[in-house]
Amino acid sequence: MDVGFIGLGHMGRPMALNLLKAGHRVTVYNRTRAKTQELASNGAQVAETIADACHGDALVTMLSDDAAVEGVVFGEEGALSALGRKAIHISMSTISVALSDRLADEHQESGRGYVSAPVFGRPEAAAAAKLFVIAAGADQMLARCQPLFDAIGQATFVVGARPSEANLVKLTGNFLIASMLESLGEAFALVRKSGIDPDRFLNILTSSLFSAPAYRTYGAIIAEGQDPVGGFKMSLALKDMRLALAAADARIVPMPVASLIRDHFVEAVAGGNGDADWSGLGRLAARRAGIEAATPSRNA
Amino acid sequence: MDVGFIGLGHMGRPMALNLLKAGHRVTVYNRTRAKTQELASNGAQVAETIADACHGDALVTMLSDDAAVEGVVFGEEGALSALGRKAIHISMSTISVALSDRLADEHQESGRGYVSAPVFGRPEAAAAAKLFVIAAGADQMLARCQPLFDAIGQATFVVGARPSEANLVKLTGNFLIASMLESLGEAFALVRKSGIDPDRFLNILTSSLFSAPAYRTYGAIIAEGQDPVGGFKMSLALKDMRLALAAADARIVPMPVASLIRDHFVEAVAGGNGDADWSGLGRLAARRAGIEAATPSRNA
Amino acid sequence: MDVGFIGLGHMGRPMALNLLKAGHRVTVYNRTRAKTQELASNGAQVAETIADACHGDALVTMLSDDAAVEGVVFGEEGALSALGRKAIHISMSTISVALSDRLADEHQESGRGYVSAPVFGRPEAAAAAKLFVIAAGADQMLARCQPLFDAIGQATFVVGARPSEANLVKLTGNFLIASMLESLGEAFALVRKSGIDPDRFLNILTSSLFSAPAYRTYGAIIAEGQDPVGGFKMSLALKDMRLALAAADARIVPMPVASLIRDHFVEAVAGGNGDADWSGLGRLAARRAGIEAATPSRNA
Amino acid sequence: MDVGFIGLGHMGRPMALNLLKAGHRVTVYNRTRAKTQELASNGAQVAETIADACHGDALVTMLSDDAAVEGVVFGEEGALSALGRKAIHISMSTISVALSDRLADEHQESGRGYVSAPVFGRPEAAAAAKLFVIAAGADQMLARCQPLFDAIGQATFVVGARPSEANLVKLTGNFLIASMLESLGEAFALVRKSGIDPDRFLNILTSSLFSAPAYRTYGAIIAEGQDPVGGFKMSLALKDMRLALAAADARIVPMPVASLIRDHFVEAVAGGNGDADWSGLGRLAARRAGIEAATPSRNA
Repeated sequence: MDVGFIGLGHMGRPMALNLLKAGHRVTVYNRTRAKTQELASNGAQVAETIADACHGDALVTMLSDDAAVEGVVFGEEGALSALGRKAIHISMSTISVALSDRLADEHQESGRGYVSAPVFGRPEAAAAAKLFVIAAGADQMLARCQPLFDAIGQATFVVGARPSEANLVKLTGNFLIASMLESLGEAFALVRKSGIDPDRFLNILTSSLFSAPAYRTYGAIIAEGQDPVGGFKMSLALKDMRLALAAADARIVPMPVASLIRDHFVEAVAGGNGDADWSGLGRLAARRAGIEAATPSRNA
Repeated sequence: MDVGFIGLGHMGRPMALNLLKAGHRVTVYNRTRAKTQELASNGAQVAETIADACHGDALVTMLSDDAAVEGVVFGEEGALSALGRKAIHISMSTISVALSDRLADEHQESGRGYVSAPVFGRPEAAAAAKLFVIAAGADQMLARCQPLFDAIGQATFVVGARPSEANLVKLTGNFLIASMLESLGEAFALVRKSGIDPDRFLNILTSSLFSAPAYRTYGAIIAEGQDPVGGFKMSLALKDMRLALAAADARIVPMPVASLIRDHFVEAVAGGNGDADWSGLGRLAARRAGIEAATPSRNA
Repeated sequence: MDVGFIGLGHMGRPMALNLLKAGHRVTVYNRTRAKTQELASNGAQVAETIADACHGDALVTMLSDDAAVEGVVFGEEGALSALGRKAIHISMSTISVALSDRLADEHQESGRGYVSAPVFGRPEAAAAAKLFVIAAGADQMLARCQPLFDAIGQATFVVGARPSEANLVKLTGNFLIASMLESLGEAFALVRKSGIDPDRFLNILTSSLFSAPAYRTYGAIIAEGQDPVGGFKMSLALKDMRLALAAADARIVPMPVASLIRDHFVEAVAGGNGDADWSGLGRLAARRAGIEAATPSRNA
Repeated sequence: MDVGFIGLGHMGRPMALNLLKAGHRVTVYNRTRAKTQELASNGAQVAETIADACHGDALVTMLSDDAAVEGVVFGEEGALSALGRKAIHISMSTISVALSDRLADEHQESGRGYVSAPVFGRPEAAAAAKLFVIAAGADQMLARCQPLFDAIGQATFVVGARPSEANLVKLTGNFLIASMLESLGEAFALVRKSGIDPDRFLNILTSSLFSAPAYRTYGAIIAEGQDPVGGFKMSLALKDMRLALAAADARIVPMPVASLIRDHFVEAVAGGNGDADWSGLGRLAARRAGIEAATPSRNA
């Protein structure tokens, strides 16, 4: 396919590379031009403007927040007007349910296609084309996008026909991960202050009830008090908790654990740790217990 | 081995049966005598008194709470005095860290052995001899108990030499399960009130980040709004949160999610649902959101 | 003074009446025309349009939320353009800090005055001209508005020169009241379930440490399980907690008690009690404890 | 009256002095003997043993926790056996509801009188004989104790006939104060981070809705970031939250705000601030918001 790709951050960069690897023709655009070089040397076209990235069959946006997506889509000479008649905008960013609904409405009005396809997975998974794609939109459009999803992910899950449903699932999934991080943080604080070896405890968990990737990956990070580079930032996690709570608020659903975690992310950002990995909830729990994390080293 | 077994509840019954199946000589005692019949017809000896169950190489207690264990061990003609000189008391109940420490002290003083070996797993896992045994105590004593652990579980994890460490791990594990139940409850309330199919959402979770037994088993229960019979009661879960928080309090560790969950179990018990399965946290979250659980049917 | 008044709800109606009583010339506008009759028969002019209410020295808006104020000010033929050159817009509604900042900017740009002056007090206090006025804005403008504040309140407190500071103080004050309601709710649930007479308990509180109007008024309501008519609705209290948390979020301030209370208001609204008085937090606490409020009667 | 007095801490010392001033004959006992000197020079008898303090008409205990009271009452040659036949034990300490019930039972069995009479007020109020006495017990015994209550307090409130009811009211009152401290802490963090003068905000609160001693005293401490010497310690406040939650747990009453505050006290103690005044909840809230308290000076 001929696809535009806007947003070459920690996640976008490896995803665009995998599209190229799979044989798609990719035109990249990034506000910070320097980030396009690696892609260019791997065969990507580099667009000078947003509009220049909008001439293919599809446009992928992989940006950090609502404001960035709004800028790209609704700005002057933005994607809304620049997209070709038959093109599809594939929004893979973790954005609000409300913005996704608005994108659906506006694209429909202007006669373009729109699907929402946020992903689960850290940058390592993006590099390995092992992301999980959560997709929602009209069946026919999803079918057209499938080759792209196949190029970046290990599996695609279709939620439903309304694009914003994928965003709600993504935000709810991030809430579940954050809730796991917080609970593990509290659990390890207790275990460590009790003099029990945290690695042994982690092994028990992941060998029995919680033998899941999320527990293995993050459990090790928290057990060893790491602050992995290039993961998912506290400040972005705070944004996602806000979006999950905003969606819950709009539907009148109380989420007390989400509220509690949001407050912890706020505390982390207020304390100057907005750029740390979101697993830092574990270090925060340790600090509350008057202990420092095992090895406060910074590595992956 | 020649082993006494006290406590034939949902968990104890299948565990004792598996000991018999594995060829051990088992003498059972239960306050409610009727519950011993099935065991007797499977080859168990039935003890008339607690003391009569204390004459073997080991005594397993699998009781519901601290008070029950204290009654059996410290009561008149209790296990503390009745146990043979070389016998080991294997406490498999989910009891407090403080009581486990006291049992260690008192057994040591009276010259008997003591190991703590609580288990993870629901009654189905107990029936299938698929429990996870979390053991702590002196290496040599644990080695002697291993044949019994092998008969009831699929794996044994040794935490350390101090018996109460196994209790702390068990309580912390139960906190992690309860925290998963609460988070899933909130997540499903949001998903369902958003009109998204809960089974589809569950499939995404368990096919990607949370492909763990605990999420699969309990996720299905919560997604379908079941109240499984014969599981783990709200009232006992409340007890365990109390014990986890008591251990945390003694070590000066704040656990805000544990506190929140404790309050929800209190609410459930105050509302007359103390006998429901602890996955009922999900129904409580649904009710708070003004929706009823999908299928409030009662089945396993 | 010659003053326009938009918004004749529970609070606005008695406030406008008091302006008339104090000798001011008042032109009222209300979306639901019927509500203007009582004012007219007390000497008010009735405006046909928003613009018609904007020709005096000042315009008071006393509306239920941001959307209503935005409609009145920024709508076509709204106050922003209709206000006279030297007129002051006095926003007394409990609106967001962000909207108040925007109003300040837009009025300045268009050359009109703007002060923010939300009030503390229930409808009874409004009727008795006993409100507390929390004002912020340029000194000179506040001085011009003082005769109006004197007509409706017992005291005016000037927060600062930036109008939105008054909104932040108002929202923070409402948070403190809601937090008192929640705490009293939990306290009375404990006291009542302990068999202690709630009125006796309330008397102790208000005769010693908490001899404040807020505790006396709301304490009695909660102790007796009333749902007073014509007070402050759960749904509006939820809105205010949202606005307080939004302001806190923008300033990166975690407010765990505010989060918890917000969730309880969400629960109340989800349960169909959005129109009940916000003191219903007490009945919610009682229900969580498995007891019903003392006398769930509906009276003031 | 002829009264024994055990416990000469921050509160007990001024209370005993006021009993002397009022003309009562007072025999003091304190574990740390040095603390009795000031009392002796004001006319008190000094007892060598607990038993020596038990020979009067009444024995007042004003100790820091359950363990201290148990030691004095149930210890060898403790008050339980040493008290004269017609003597009354007046427990003024903030102890658990459960211990108060046990004291009632044991004193009744041994034929002595028992009333519970904890107090509200800081050491300054104790010095000025301005405490509030919360009393419960048999009417006739309370009548006999009234002269003592009059000597130390400004008012006595009778809760009921069961002594432990006074303890429950005292613990619930302390919960309400702690909840006010936490809420004020969050409110001031928001107000200060918004650039609003905290003293001006406090003045608004205490001049309008919250014109109560508790808000005035603690509001000023929090607004100015003080850590008053000789107040009520974090570690003791933590103990009281534990006791309030234990009573609530026994009655199956969820108290989410109490749980949250308990965790904050645990955090404070874990952080090495167990000896700070409990108003330190305000500094904790400020720190969470990334700001330091206004003037972290240490003064009263």
